Amino acid sequence: MTNLREGDLVLLLDSKQRQYLVTLQAGKEFHSHAGFISHEEIIGAGEGVTLRSTRGASYTVLRPTLSEFILKMPRGAQVIYPKDIGPILMLADIRPGLRVLESGVGSGALSMGMLRCGVDIVGYELREEFADRARANVERFLGAEALDRYRIELRDCYEGIDETDLDRVILDLPEPWQVVSHAATALRPGGLILAYSPSIVQVMQFREALDKAGFILADSMEVLNRGWHVDGMAVRPDHRMVAHTGFLTTARRGVE
Amino acid sequence: MTNLREGDLVLLLDSKQRQYLVTLQAGKEFHSHAGFISHEEIIGAGEGVTLRSTRGASYTVLRPTLSEFILKMPRGAQVIYPKDIGPILMLADIRPGLRVLESGVGSGALSMGMLRCGVDIVGYELREEFADRARANVERFLGAEALDRYRIELRDCYEGIDETDLDRVILDLPEPWQVVSHAATALRPGGLILAYSPSIVQVMQFREALDKAGFILADSMEVLNRGWHVDGMAVRPDHRMVAHTGFLTTARRGVE
Amino acid sequence: MTNLREGDLVLLLDSKQRQYLVTLQAGKEFHSHAGFISHEEIIGAGEGVTLRSTRGASYTVLRPTLSEFILKMPRGAQVIYPKDIGPILMLADIRPGLRVLESGVGSGALSMGMLRCGVDIVGYELREEFADRARANVERFLGAEALDRYRIELRDCYEGIDETDLDRVILDLPEPWQVVSHAATALRPGGLILAYSPSIVQVMQFREALDKAGFILADSMEVLNRGWHVDGMAVRPDHRMVAHTGFLTTARRGVE
Amino acid sequence: MTNLREGDLVLLLDSKQRQYLVTLQAGKEFHSHAGFISHEEIIGAGEGVTLRSTRGASYTVLRPTLSEFILKMPRGAQVIYPKDIGPILMLADIRPGLRVLESGVGSGALSMGMLRCGVDIVGYELREEFADRARANVERFLGAEALDRYRIELRDCYEGIDETDLDRVILDLPEPWQVVSHAATALRPGGLILAYSPSIVQVMQFREALDKAGFILADSMEVLNRGWHVDGMAVRPDHRMVAHTGFLTTARRGVE
Repeated sequence: MTNLREGDLVLLLDSKQRQYLVTLQAGKEFHSHAGFISHEEIIGAGEGVTLRSTRGASYTVLRPTLSEFILKMPRGAQVIYPKDIGPILMLADIRPGLRVLESGVGSGALSMGMLRCGVDIVGYELREEFADRARANVERFLGAEALDRYRIELRDCYEGIDETDLDRVILDLPEPWQVVSHAATALRPGGLILAYSPSIVQVMQFREALDKAGFILADSMEVLNRGWHVDGMAVRPDHRMVAHTGFLTTARRGVE
Repeated sequence: MTNLREGDLVLLLDSKQRQYLVTLQAGKEFHSHAGFISHEEIIGAGEGVTLRSTRGASYTVLRPTLSEFILKMPRGAQVIYPKDIGPILMLADIRPGLRVLESGVGSGALSMGMLRCGVDIVGYELREEFADRARANVERFLGAEALDRYRIELRDCYEGIDETDLDRVILDLPEPWQVVSHAATALRPGGLILAYSPSIVQVMQFREALDKAGFILADSMEVLNRGWHVDGMAVRPDHRMVAHTGFLTTARRGVE
Repeated sequence: MTNLREGDLVLLLDSKQRQYLVTLQAGKEFHSHAGFISHEEIIGAGEGVTLRSTRGASYTVLRPTLSEFILKMPRGAQVIYPKDIGPILMLADIRPGLRVLESGVGSGALSMGMLRCGVDIVGYELREEFADRARANVERFLGAEALDRYRIELRDCYEGIDETDLDRVILDLPEPWQVVSHAATALRPGGLILAYSPSIVQVMQFREALDKAGFILADSMEVLNRGWHVDGMAVRPDHRMVAHTGFLTTARRGVE
Repeated sequence: MTNLREGDLVLLLDSKQRQYLVTLQAGKEFHSHAGFISHEEIIGAGEGVTLRSTRGASYTVLRPTLSEFILKMPRGAQVIYPKDIGPILMLADIRPGLRVLESGVGSGALSMGMLRCGVDIVGYELREEFADRARANVERFLGAEALDRYRIELRDCYEGIDETDLDRVILDLPEPWQVVSHAATALRPGGLILAYSPSIVQVMQFREALDKAGFILADSMEVLNRGWHVDGMAVRPDHRMVAHTGFLTTARRGVE
């Protein structure tokens, strides 16, 4: 891991643990309530250093994790959070070389998690601005070469899937059941479908469609993360937590 | 995805959804209470087919996911379960090219999850039979080439770490706080340490050691998976669930 | 609190914390794998004493709590557990003097919790053996005088409610929505309806009926109890837990 | 249930479900951003009616449940919430006639829950303003006659307990372990001790003290309430929830 370079993405961490996402660029400055730090001071420094702004505030410089990036990147109201991305990687058995259809792509959060595991993604996305933002986020975090494995088409997954012999179909759509019959022909035998759904009613309808289409091993669950406050003798769960994002349903394509 | 071949790992799924893990080998047979199926029938078939045993029971053939493999592979009493492996991949920001120290390696479950994301692992493990089993599991599921990125040393992580400039130190040990000072010098600045700990007392002691050693962004949490039963009008969480495996604590090495 | 007397209900606790429920009766014996203890030894002893059976096993004698009694009393497959009874007492604001309709009564577990808070209960129950068992449990745990405030009618709550000006309607029925219009006239204004429902689909249908009938403040939730293992340095949540019993929905009758 | 009278406690509910707690008093007015309602309009009306303020906002009038009262009554930073009061009533087996020591009394929330079940409470409380507020809350919600069963002494429970033959000792104190030896002599055999503790470290120290003092059946747990959003097809857990208040530990006094 070499020193920080122009174009690198960094996280500046202030003394109150607030995080700021910055892409390093010669000639630019990071401005805060306490003056600024020129990017040139950061370029060439090592990760983990703490620098001072012109008016004395200290900022620690780190490369962001994917989780940190997702929470700071440009994104729409809805995003699949890191809490669910890790479990999805396991549930969908994401591994190098798989051909994945993802629809919609949202802001690209889950795409980045899967691309990083070495898959090829075709994204079906209705809204051009979502496609653009997802691509921009992927390029910024993973680099331009990741785009070689990330092709987004502006189209409606409910109307059909052109790809065949897919390994995975990953859905974050309001009506995933509309995709089931398309997925049944687009997936190779043994291939896996996964849907992320906020409402349990969506889960019910998706499960019904999966059963009708002959999918096997259908399973639904939800993931809860419980943060802990650990400070000397005060050791307890956080007072509040995210209680719900979405349900995760998986199934595999059998052969009739 | 081509047809099943000799040497392939498959999961046989009976009509009651019970799963059997089999490595295909010409001349062998899979025996059950309902007669047998010869491996040669399976070899050459496509994933997803359903075959019948000599006495008429039907078995669907699938390649196992990593999660399914972990639950069926030879393993000791303690293993890091898929429930935690997905979140660990995100919390530890596992990505291709990272150099990871893992101690202990247990049965290799977490190792497989990380290797599949493209890291290089050095494992410190005290017990030779654990090292052997972990290597065997990795080879069986990921193939022999994965061993090029998986080197296990029979040694005690409490006594020191020889590696330097590590990107990650991942601990599943009874006393992770004994490793903190070693990790502080073995990790590159900005590097990340993660410990999996069953008891909250371990978390307390680990967090105290992290603070003393100048680690930053320390955070502790636990992951709960809640399964759902979805069957027509009967839609409810499963009656019972795994309520605890381990707490996950992460921190990053700052520069003093 | 005087010494134990004939007719008292006691819990015998063996050295492995197993519990046995016994009603003390002169001339009787409590038999175990390790011989017996005559009830007469227990009668006259004080709560908390530890006695030995004829073959040397020790048993501690306690009066059971309602929770302990519910887990040991004769009961059908379905019972409202102590986990939900405490929350129901608060959600339904159970207090002395209220007139409560309960349907069905099941094995009387919730009835006992409410009777103990001083309410009068009319139970509508379809099955005579359930009514008999509920009454027997109430009498055994709370004494015969509690039956003065506990009247069970063998009838179907879906077909109507004869009572008027009720303070509470408490439902543990497969189709609580069938009771909503009856409850709307049987409850006094401001009165409260509560349903315990295993499936979220039941909750959906009940909520829809409540809205249509003009009920206000409708709210649904579920209660999770997480046990902790606390033993020296091993301090962690129990490995497994009850993940689901039923959803609790409450609403109040407004005035149109 | 008669009409509302002077002195009655009511909850005014606006169209956005916001709640306002009011004690009815002739000559007074309830003021809001949308004009006012004179108390005299409410006095004599029936529960459940909807009234309009001078500038046209509508308010539904209900008697508050204990849970609603606790969330609106004057209280300090810390209070035992309804979420835990229901479970405590079951865990501590609260029933008519028990003699309970409670320390501290906080704002009286738990006291009200227990008094309503018919117990006699002696409260040990260090701070006079807490004692006064607890008494005022009890009187306002339960009426003056409840004070006959609620005696608060300004004293430190760590220094000893004068009462003997107590049925229950209920603790909401920072160091409950300091009370254990006092409770061991103050409780009758078979009596029950319960502590509410925010930090798991408090639980550990309390449990250790209980074991040393010969208490039996020690058990620790926590209660989680998960709210559900049920609105047509959108049926899901609430996005956020209270993840922690306190751990509940119970044990019973054995006889040495």
